[in-house]
Amino acid sequence: MEKFQITKEFSEDILSLIQERRGDELVPVLNRLHAPDIAELIEDYDLEEAVYLTSLLETPKKVEVLAELEPEARQNYLDGFNSEQIAVDFISNMDSDDAADLLNEFEPERTSEILSKMPDHAYSMSLATLLRYPEDAAGGLMASELIKVNINWDVAQCTAEIRKQAEEVSKVFTVYVVDDDDILLGIVSLKKIILAKANSRVSEIYESNFVSENVYAPGEKVASTMNKYDLVSLPIVDALGRLVGRITIDDVMDFVKEEADKDYQLLSGISENVEVSDRIWVLSRARLPWLIIGLFGGVMSSLVIGGFEGEISRNVSLAFFMPLVMAMGGNAGVQSSAIVVQGLANNTLGHITILPRLGKEFMVALINALVCASIVLIYGLVSKVGYDITIVVCISMLSAIIFASLMGSLIPIMLNTFGIDPALATGPFITTSNDLLGLFIYFFTGHAIL
Amino acid sequence: MEKFQITKEFSEDILSLIQERRGDELVPVLNRLHAPDIAELIEDYDLEEAVYLTSLLETPKKVEVLAELEPEARQNYLDGFNSEQIAVDFISNMDSDDAADLLNEFEPERTSEILSKMPDHAYSMSLATLLRYPEDAAGGLMASELIKVNINWDVAQCTAEIRKQAEEVSKVFTVYVVDDDDILLGIVSLKKIILAKANSRVSEIYESNFVSENVYAPGEKVASTMNKYDLVSLPIVDALGRLVGRITIDDVMDFVKEEADKDYQLLSGISENVEVSDRIWVLSRARLPWLIIGLFGGVMSSLVIGGFEGEISRNVSLAFFMPLVMAMGGNAGVQSSAIVVQGLANNTLGHITILPRLGKEFMVALINALVCASIVLIYGLVSKVGYDITIVVCISMLSAIIFASLMGSLIPIMLNTFGIDPALATGPFITTSNDLLGLFIYFFTGHAIL
Repeated sequence: MEKFQITKEFSEDILSLIQERRGDELVPVLNRLHAPDIAELIEDYDLEEAVYLTSLLETPKKVEVLAELEPEARQNYLDGFNSEQIAVDFISNMDSDDAADLLNEFEPERTSEILSKMPDHAYSMSLATLLRYPEDAAGGLMASELIKVNINWDVAQCTAEIRKQAEEVSKVFTVYVVDDDDILLGIVSLKKIILAKANSRVSEIYESNFVSENVYAPGEKVASTMNKYDLVSLPIVDALGRLVGRITIDDVMDFVKEEADKDYQLLSGISENVEVSDRIWVLSRARLPWLIIGLFGGVMSSLVIGGFEGEISRNVSLAFFMPLVMAMGGNAGVQSSAIVVQGLANNTLGHITILPRLGKEFMVALINALVCASIVLIYGLVSKVGYDITIVVCISMLSAIIFASLMGSLIPIMLNTFGIDPALATGPFITTSNDLLGLFIYFFTGHAIL
Repeated sequence: MEKFQITKEFSEDILSLIQERRGDELVPVLNRLHAPDIAELIEDYDLEEAVYLTSLLETPKKVEVLAELEPEARQNYLDGFNSEQIAVDFISNMDSDDAADLLNEFEPERTSEILSKMPDHAYSMSLATLLRYPEDAAGGLMASELIKVNINWDVAQCTAEIRKQAEEVSKVFTVYVVDDDDILLGIVSLKKIILAKANSRVSEIYESNFVSENVYAPGEKVASTMNKYDLVSLPIVDALGRLVGRITIDDVMDFVKEEADKDYQLLSGISENVEVSDRIWVLSRARLPWLIIGLFGGVMSSLVIGGFEGEISRNVSLAFFMPLVMAMGGNAGVQSSAIVVQGLANNTLGHITILPRLGKEFMVALINALVCASIVLIYGLVSKVGYDITIVVCISMLSAIIFASLMGSLIPIMLNTFGIDPALATGPFITTSNDLLGLFIYFFTGHAIL
């Protein structure tokens, strides 16, 4: 069967079947749908309708649907169940990474209550361990379910063990090879196990040249490692090198996407993770902070301009080129910081040393500023703008572009050094400061020359 | 063995070993390095040194290193080989998706020449087929190597066939189930095959509820499908439903990353895919277009302001608030288009109909504009700015925010409808137009009221 595009009509047809409680007709339809499609469907429905629809699903699929819901919709949906139901029906049947993510969404007291109602004590203990790690670190992203074999076994023992363990692990790509102390020694792919003879030994077919990350490695590092080495799953080890979990690529892909979206939104001046479909006041709230900072910047600039009221009265043409100088400094600053922020995010910056980096940025800014200044100079000469004001615009624009570019490179590198998200350097505060700076440079130059 | 961080010292040690041609000492070091690390190393070396170092590698690893190089470094490196060497040593040993990507980087004549030198005629034919698809469509991203089994077989036949086919396929996650006409019927995981008894039939254990894409589906659709359904590999079918290839998640992850980077760069006004490590003139060239468009915008705004020279002379305080009104309109426009562009990129917009979308955007913009106007009003009343000019600023800022927000939503949706990249709406042209528009609104309001 093919994948399904959910139309509005389809959604309404399903809704009327739900309202008439026609479970017998709904079940075959639900069987043809994938969990993400069902999640998309029930986000439009009321709590009672959603609970009825998912009650028709088999447990593994019901749990998958829950994991696919948006966090807000998931919390609404779970309001339809008490702690014991959540523990027994949902958490107990989820992979540990999804279960930990879900538990992290509750208040700490509720989380403890849910864990205490779990029938499998060992599993609730291992979830409690996962919850100790920071959500964005390897330990918070990993699942503890994995398949491991001892280096001293042969392939037949492996296959038997894999059969036993695989029941619990939903996605198997790689089998991990450990010693008697659980220290990770290497990996072996399912393909190699299928291709090997039953009496070959694990030690003969395993790959000792593997990549792993520490349980406290930040998510960004996990993502860039998996991306660089094209890995589908990454083993996570503790300080002693013992295997504690694995991260699969789908979890990292979500993480990479979220990080990229966050940087994009900071660059565009949006302060929360919002979507077009969010409510009006959510969208409004996410956009107001940037606007208000911009507003204060505008008021500040009105004060700066007001301070030069005399100069403007004497020479009105000084007012004509204010927006030009401000915009050029602002644009150059955003470009320069965006390149550095993206380089830091993609880990392509290598071993950056600040001085050579600034030297290079100075050269780039100088070239671009000279090109722009030449254009202004030519324009000034052929138009009736006047010689003096043209010189003022050229000099101040040149300084504004160079200064803003240097700040644009320096600030994200410094933020990153202090462990602060460098993408903040593209946000409203820096951009507004750059605008003001351009204005200052412009009027001081004007004051000096005119 | 652990993964390796390449330091400058390490790179220099290796270089001196290369220069002394100490292959016997280099081989054990290279064996411990992963292909992406070796690629990183040789990007710093001269052609001759890079060719010597890679000549010490076994073929599969050498080919992997080639695939990991940045396109420019790859072309430089391949200058050290003739067409026959490229065909025999490299292309013949690469997976078809990587081989097709590499061939796409040559001039068409060179590509034909390389294909004609390939020892395996069948493989060169299948590569020529892949080259027919657009690079960014499913057909251009997919590899033709995959493992397929007939629905009428039993598990023992499958295992034998997998053993035979798996030699050629570097990554196996899923086995595809087809009928006698090669029509894709479903999938079965390696895990299920390992867990099944040898005499169970494929038809009993396969999953008929699968997701596939057409060979001409755009890359964005492939990426969003794989992301939505958490797939590690996606089968690609032709118009008749015949299985023609598969796309693995690592290829899509690169694609997603590239698309996100492109949108980010458009938003920041950078016109080419550049990195901090690029040469000065490349960085300068990528940033100049935005600056020059901004410059023309600035000159235009100087003309607009010049047209109101009389008003400014009579009332200098009109000059004070120009930057404020321009910036507020500009910021609101960028926010609004960024949300729509991101929604289109992430496919979270659902079934957008333009009118309700604009209605909602109008409400968001109205709320934010009213909040900002209230702040300006209070500021105008408590400061000595003057009543008239405060009213001018409030009215024009309100109009500029609302108008720019509506344009910011409308333009990316329209571009998308016409099949143009909506991210262009965040670029220099639209942003500069929004600035100019704010200025017009400001002076017309000023002209009418003062």
